[in-house]
Amino acid sequence: MNKRDFLSIQALGSRELADLLDLAARMKRRGPGQVLAGKTLGLLFFERSLRTRVSFHVAMEQLGGHCLSLFADRDIYDLEAQDRAVMVGSAEEHVQDAARTLSRYVDALGIRHLPPATSWAEARAEALVRAYAEYASVPVINLETALEHPCQAIADMLTIRERLIDVRGRNLTLAWGYDPEPKSLGVSHSVLLSAAALGLNVTLAHPLGFELDPQIVEAARTRATESGGSVRVVNDLAEGVREAHVLYARSWRSLKFYADPERESIVKRSLEGWRIDGELLASTKNAIFMHPLPVRRNVVATDDVLDGPQSVIYDQAENRLHAGKALLVHLLGG
Amino acid sequence: MNKRDFLSIQALGSRELADLLDLAARMKRRGPGQVLAGKTLGLLFFERSLRTRVSFHVAMEQLGGHCLSLFADRDIYDLEAQDRAVMVGSAEEHVQDAARTLSRYVDALGIRHLPPATSWAEARAEALVRAYAEYASVPVINLETALEHPCQAIADMLTIRERLIDVRGRNLTLAWGYDPEPKSLGVSHSVLLSAAALGLNVTLAHPLGFELDPQIVEAARTRATESGGSVRVVNDLAEGVREAHVLYARSWRSLKFYADPERESIVKRSLEGWRIDGELLASTKNAIFMHPLPVRRNVVATDDVLDGPQSVIYDQAENRLHAGKALLVHLLGG
Amino acid sequence: MNKRDFLSIQALGSRELADLLDLAARMKRRGPGQVLAGKTLGLLFFERSLRTRVSFHVAMEQLGGHCLSLFADRDIYDLEAQDRAVMVGSAEEHVQDAARTLSRYVDALGIRHLPPATSWAEARAEALVRAYAEYASVPVINLETALEHPCQAIADMLTIRERLIDVRGRNLTLAWGYDPEPKSLGVSHSVLLSAAALGLNVTLAHPLGFELDPQIVEAARTRATESGGSVRVVNDLAEGVREAHVLYARSWRSLKFYADPERESIVKRSLEGWRIDGELLASTKNAIFMHPLPVRRNVVATDDVLDGPQSVIYDQAENRLHAGKALLVHLLGG
Repeated sequence: MNKRDFLSIQALGSRELADLLDLAARMKRRGPGQVLAGKTLGLLFFERSLRTRVSFHVAMEQLGGHCLSLFADRDIYDLEAQDRAVMVGSAEEHVQDAARTLSRYVDALGIRHLPPATSWAEARAEALVRAYAEYASVPVINLETALEHPCQAIADMLTIRERLIDVRGRNLTLAWGYDPEPKSLGVSHSVLLSAAALGLNVTLAHPLGFELDPQIVEAARTRATESGGSVRVVNDLAEGVREAHVLYARSWRSLKFYADPERESIVKRSLEGWRIDGELLASTKNAIFMHPLPVRRNVVATDDVLDGPQSVIYDQAENRLHAGKALLVHLLGG
Repeated sequence: MNKRDFLSIQALGSRELADLLDLAARMKRRGPGQVLAGKTLGLLFFERSLRTRVSFHVAMEQLGGHCLSLFADRDIYDLEAQDRAVMVGSAEEHVQDAARTLSRYVDALGIRHLPPATSWAEARAEALVRAYAEYASVPVINLETALEHPCQAIADMLTIRERLIDVRGRNLTLAWGYDPEPKSLGVSHSVLLSAAALGLNVTLAHPLGFELDPQIVEAARTRATESGGSVRVVNDLAEGVREAHVLYARSWRSLKFYADPERESIVKRSLEGWRIDGELLASTKNAIFMHPLPVRRNVVATDDVLDGPQSVIYDQAENRLHAGKALLVHLLGG
Repeated sequence: MNKRDFLSIQALGSRELADLLDLAARMKRRGPGQVLAGKTLGLLFFERSLRTRVSFHVAMEQLGGHCLSLFADRDIYDLEAQDRAVMVGSAEEHVQDAARTLSRYVDALGIRHLPPATSWAEARAEALVRAYAEYASVPVINLETALEHPCQAIADMLTIRERLIDVRGRNLTLAWGYDPEPKSLGVSHSVLLSAAALGLNVTLAHPLGFELDPQIVEAARTRATESGGSVRVVNDLAEGVREAHVLYARSWRSLKFYADPERESIVKRSLEGWRIDGELLASTKNAIFMHPLPVRRNVVATDDVLDGPQSVIYDQAENRLHAGKALLVHLLGG
């Protein structure tokens, strides 16, 4: 049996991504149905979730199926992930047994896992989610890892298509924002990859030292080339947003200081000006404003931007639901 | 769009309350249906819940819909509630964003929030629940705040009507009971307000220093005047219960010592006699005995009262379910 | 009203157990249905659960009903279990009130409760689960106590029947395995009792000092006599497995050291050889290999055994679902 996982937005080619967005748009117009009646989605959370958990629950309900959330601290035993381990430590269960067992009960498994890591190399390996995908006999969905958050990116691309209609050749700026806490890179990577695949001209605007993962950027360039888009990097916020039709704000942590958040914190002190305010938004090509939420208001972006007429942040949130339905039908339906 | 919230029992006029009770009584006789098919109720718990959570889950299932519980410590980011805040503190999300996001996923939101407060003025403001109601575009239901527990009161009034049939002019005594822990005032306020609205003669029997909130008592007097009922206060338990057709026991904390539970504890030492036992119940007009549960047995009331033939405590609990269904249909149905 | 609880596998006679297994086998072949539409199962977890929680949720969904999980630390107040207690301590609710209240909302209650105990006598009394069963007016299902795990045993017997077809006169060895942590005895007791009831010849293979509960062993002998099976004990692993058609590995704690896990730990140091490896499995009568999971790989059993062709551990896990459905229909259906 050839099961389809959804660990990365790269699992979808440009054509497939566009088809999925079409499906999501149709599902948004449609009312509740029964296409996944009798099917169950299991969600495993190792981290907090609001949008992801609620949107997938409601998505399964609207498709006639069921969703069950499991929480690491309550439902899941300490998991061993290493192959052939002699399990005399604290781990009571091996991920292969958990994955194979759950595969007997549910029709797909979504996993959010963002563990502390001592290096970016370790974090980007997405060890646990990859192990689940290897051992589970049902599709595994990435609900956010250190490397990617592909479900968010589908919702975002759906939102962009609703506003711009034809997205090819339009300019999207992914603008780094100041946040007192180190934020994960997954959303930014998935947005970059999916925008490039749809043929947008992507500008990454971030301070020096806050480069995205080089392999992801390289993959995005390749996809952009194929789709007629482009990827460029600028280290100045004002310059970065000037030509934008889409201004996507998001903070992310520095790969350089991945194991040293104190150091990142010191470096960031001089970067509080990386904030989207009304003046900056006015300098764009009447861009729609996007952010995946949660957002620190008046830190990453000001209230007038977040609540202004160009903001589509709640449409992004709602589209998590419709993107989720399309993805579930893509993986499980028909 | 003019959405209806249900934050206080005062949201319902006397006529509306009576209609809702009629609907609840009909729904109790009826089996499961599909009137809320495709609808989702989201519940947000900042505090423990047994009756509220289970009864609303089952209520939605019996109406053909779905219910999803969210827990503050697991699902919800630290929330900022102040307008225009510059969010550099620990709060990662503003309540306006959480409320607007959830409004895109669910059809109604129930919230239980009873945070520690430094004063009664702060507690009675119900800041978080009011903020959710302001920002959410779907109905918000109060599942208990420091000030009110209106869903409990509807269930209680349904229970009284089942036993007394015609409630006008009957006597309800709300009797303060000793409990080693400070208990919230919400149930007592909502019971007082709803009983007054239905035309019952309400006696508040409590020790000096355990007065209910003056604005709530005043509002209850106004409602009583309109409905032909009355509200009086006595500071003696035996006198308070003598004419009761309904004896409702409940402990509540002192507003005077709201920020000083140690002090309340000392004052309460002399009040252990505020307990309903069989002798006291026998001195009433064959009253039905009520308590919202959970109850400290043989402290607030004795086993023979709780388990005796006049006790309707489990009917109250069951009626949470039917009252919940009626409320949901009132807010969402048809 | 004569409600049926399911606290012990002994609640089922041999004939009833066989009928239930027939029903489970039929339900495994069948797709989702609606036989429990409008019914709700409530699950109370005082301990972690993966297989039990997920399988019962999916079971109810496949039967057209609903399942709601409650967690002791979140949903349930501190419970008083003693009759006629004067509740001035930390317990805010009596189990009789919780049980009677929940009985008004749900159609059956499953409970997992394995509290720390100071003696085996205390643990085997299953006080809380028995109290729930006494006070609830709906069927109560044991989801694992210190004494039994009957739902696991039904799934296991279903698995054995799938592989051996005719189980009478076949040999099942229940082999103690080394595990660094003390493990509960419930699974072993329920497997022993059910295998004996089905007429299997059961060999208990364990080190001296790791005897199962004498009353349970005695009850198993009685059931074996009635069904044509047998029960014997050997204290040597190699000898114990030699004639096995079914090799069931499971660690369990010592009754002797129930209140002294440190002591058990010292004693166990010399017992690390109680492990099922490929060589040992090869010495059986081509036995199927069973374990209820979670399992410490390469400690209780080696990878080659767990992943080999004789292993049926995931079938056991899957059969929790079908056994659960059969049990629910048995208790609630028709």
